[in-house]
Amino acid sequence: MEKNQMVLEIPYGTRDFLPKEAAAKRLVEQKLAGLFAAWGYEEVVTPTVEYLDTLTMGNGRALEPHMFKLFDRGNRTLALHHEMTTPIARLAASRLKEAAMPLKLSYISSVFRYEQTQTGRQCEFYQAGVELMGQAAATADAEVLALAMEGLQTAGLKEFSLCLGQVEFVAGIMEQNGLSEEMQENLKSAMERHDIVGLEELVDSLKLQKSAADGLKEIPLLHGDEAVLQRAYAMALNERSRRALDNLSEIYRLLKSYGLVSHVTFDLGMIRDFNYYTGMVFEAYTPGLGFPLCGGGRYDHMLSDFGMACPATGFAVGIERVLLAMERQKLKEPTAAKDIYLGYAPQNMEEAIQKAMELRRQGKVVELALAAQSEAEAETAQREKGYDRLEYLA
Amino acid sequence: MEKNQMVLEIPYGTRDFLPKEAAAKRLVEQKLAGLFAAWGYEEVVTPTVEYLDTLTMGNGRALEPHMFKLFDRGNRTLALHHEMTTPIARLAASRLKEAAMPLKLSYISSVFRYEQTQTGRQCEFYQAGVELMGQAAATADAEVLALAMEGLQTAGLKEFSLCLGQVEFVAGIMEQNGLSEEMQENLKSAMERHDIVGLEELVDSLKLQKSAADGLKEIPLLHGDEAVLQRAYAMALNERSRRALDNLSEIYRLLKSYGLVSHVTFDLGMIRDFNYYTGMVFEAYTPGLGFPLCGGGRYDHMLSDFGMACPATGFAVGIERVLLAMERQKLKEPTAAKDIYLGYAPQNMEEAIQKAMELRRQGKVVELALAAQSEAEAETAQREKGYDRLEYLA
Repeated sequence: MEKNQMVLEIPYGTRDFLPKEAAAKRLVEQKLAGLFAAWGYEEVVTPTVEYLDTLTMGNGRALEPHMFKLFDRGNRTLALHHEMTTPIARLAASRLKEAAMPLKLSYISSVFRYEQTQTGRQCEFYQAGVELMGQAAATADAEVLALAMEGLQTAGLKEFSLCLGQVEFVAGIMEQNGLSEEMQENLKSAMERHDIVGLEELVDSLKLQKSAADGLKEIPLLHGDEAVLQRAYAMALNERSRRALDNLSEIYRLLKSYGLVSHVTFDLGMIRDFNYYTGMVFEAYTPGLGFPLCGGGRYDHMLSDFGMACPATGFAVGIERVLLAMERQKLKEPTAAKDIYLGYAPQNMEEAIQKAMELRRQGKVVELALAAQSEAEAETAQREKGYDRLEYLA
Repeated sequence: MEKNQMVLEIPYGTRDFLPKEAAAKRLVEQKLAGLFAAWGYEEVVTPTVEYLDTLTMGNGRALEPHMFKLFDRGNRTLALHHEMTTPIARLAASRLKEAAMPLKLSYISSVFRYEQTQTGRQCEFYQAGVELMGQAAATADAEVLALAMEGLQTAGLKEFSLCLGQVEFVAGIMEQNGLSEEMQENLKSAMERHDIVGLEELVDSLKLQKSAADGLKEIPLLHGDEAVLQRAYAMALNERSRRALDNLSEIYRLLKSYGLVSHVTFDLGMIRDFNYYTGMVFEAYTPGLGFPLCGGGRYDHMLSDFGMACPATGFAVGIERVLLAMERQKLKEPTAAKDIYLGYAPQNMEEAIQKAMELRRQGKVVELALAAQSEAEAETAQREKGYDRLEYLA
C-alpha cells in the first residue's frame, strides 16, 4: 500500500488537469489558436527538449538554474524548453530563413521552470503566444499588443489592463547619468523587486546632482495614463531615452486606431524577467490576480545571435492564469457539452449502438451504456455523469 | 558561425513542425478531440514529467532504457512520459477514484522514447487516444475499437485495416502445452519479430507431440478473416484459449452492429510492445505505411497495481503517422485558410487597421501589412505568403 501511495504522487510543481479543467483548457486554447490564425499568425511546434546551449542563447546563463536538465546519449546537456521565444527564434533562423518577411508565428505549448510554486506558478505550465519577426517599426509592436488584448477578450476576460514600458527609456536615463554597468544592474534589480527604499539608497550613494537623482528615483513612479509620457519626456535628456518615448507614443497612437486604448496604461519602470528585450515591454493584469496574465516585448538581437539579423516582437499568455482569473472573477468558464446518455434493455443493444452512431453524426455528445440496464439504473447513470438528458430503449 | 550552426541543431529524434505541418497536426488533433468528446470521452492532461517508479508500474523495467530520465531536486528519478496509459491509470486510481464508472477518458499529448529513428518513428511523437475503465465485457472493447476506426476515418483516412488479437489465446495455447515461463517468453519474442524459422526451431527443441508442435508453429499464420477463428477453435484445448476466442467472436459480432466490420481482420499471433495487455489487442494498418498507425488493447491489471482493482481497455493513434499516411496516399491534407492580405497607401493605415479588425470579426483570416506599400508590393506579398486574395486601400 505504501508503494502504491508513492507511485500515485506527481513531481513537485506539476499538475493533472481533470476533465472539467482539461475541457476549459482546450476550449481556451482553441479560441486562441483560432484568433492567432485569423490574424495571419501561423502555428509552429518545436521539440519539448532542446540543447541547453540553444535555450540559453538569448538570455545568457541567468535562467539555467531554473531549467529541467537532462543528458543525451552523447552526454550533451539538454533541457526542457523554459519559454518559447528562443526555440522559435532558432527555428526562424534555420528552417524559415527563406520565408517571406515579416514572419508571423504562433504556438501553444507547455514550458518548464524550477520555481518555488505558488498560486498561478507551477514548474510546468501552458503558454499561448505569437512572435512577429522582420519589422522594427511600432506598427509591429502595436499589432502584437492589440492581438494580446483581443486574445484576453476572446479567452473570455472582460476586465484587464495592459501596462506598457520601454527598456530603452530606463537604459537611456542611466546612460545620461554615466552609470557603470554594475550600478545599472543594481538599480534595475531594485526596480524589478519594487524596492523603492533600496533604490533610493543606491541613488543617494551615487552623489549625483539633485535633479538627476530625483529623476532616477522617480522612474518606478512613472505609471499611469498618457500623462506619464509627458512627465517622462521632461526627464529624457538624451536621444536614446527620447526615442524610447517616441516609440511608446507611436504605439499608443496606433492602439487608438485598433480601438483598444482604454485598457492601456504606462509603467516606465517595468523590468521584465528575460533580459533579451530591447524595446517595448508589457504585462497584462486582471482584477483578483496578483501576477501578470500575459507579457512580452521587443527583442531585436536574439535572431542575430542565431545568425539571422532581424528585429522581432511578441508575447505569451499563461493559460492556467487565464482560467484562474475567470474562476476568481466568477466568469462562465468554458465547459464541454454533455447531451445524451443512452441506455437500453438487453434485447436492444444493437439498436442502441446504431442510435448512438446516428446521434453523434448529428453532432450530439452521446455516452452509450456498455451493458443493458433498467431505466432506473440508466437515469442514475445519466445524473451521476452529468448528461443533459436520458434516452432509453425499453 | 560555427557556434551559430551548433545552436541551430535540435536533439536526435526530435522535429520541428513548420506552419503547414503544424496546421495539419492541429486540425487532425481537433477532429479527434471533437470525436472523442462526441462519444462521451473526457479529456485529461497529465504532467510531461513523472516519477520513473510511476511510469514503470504497468510494464516492469523493460522500457526503462528507452526513457528520457532526469532527476528532481531531491535526486529522485523522473522521466518524460513514454506513453499515456500508465499516467492516466495513475490519475484514475488517485484523483478520479470516486468518479462514476465506467470512466471514459481521452488525451492528446507528445510522448518520448529513445529509439533508433526511422520514417514514422521519432524520439518525441504525438499520440491521441482513449482509456475506458470499469467495464470488463466485450462491449467495452468493441466501443474502443469502433472509436479507433471512426478516429482514422475522421482524421481523413479511407483505407485501413484493423488486426485483432488476444493475448490470452497465445497464453492458453502455451499453457496447454505446459511450457516454462522462459520458453513462453522465447516463443513470444520469435513471434513478435515474425521470425518463423526461429519459432520452428524453438518448437522442435521441445519434442512435443506432432499435433501440439504444429499448433504452436501455426500461431503466426492465424491471420485473415473470420474463418481464422474457426481454425483457432480447433487448436484451443483448454478453457483459457477458448474463452479468448469467445471474447474475439463477441467483439466481432458487436462491430457488425457498429457497421465497421469490413475493416477488421484477425492476427492471433500478434504480440504488442507493452506487456501490460491482458486480453484483446489490436493494431491498425494503412496502405503505404509499414508500421501500425494505431494500436491498443485490454489491460485489466494495471489499475490494481495503482491500488484500484478495475478492468480497462484503450488505444492510441500516432498523429504523425496519420499525417504521413495521408501524404503518401495523396489524400487532401488539412490546411489552414488564408483569406485576405490587406495592404494600404500611407494615408490609409488607420482605415486599414479598422478594416482588418472588421474582416476578422466576420471570420476571415486576414494578414495586415505592417507598413504602407504600393499596390504592386502588396500583390507580391499576397502571392508570396499564399493568401487567396488582396485587398488594397489606395
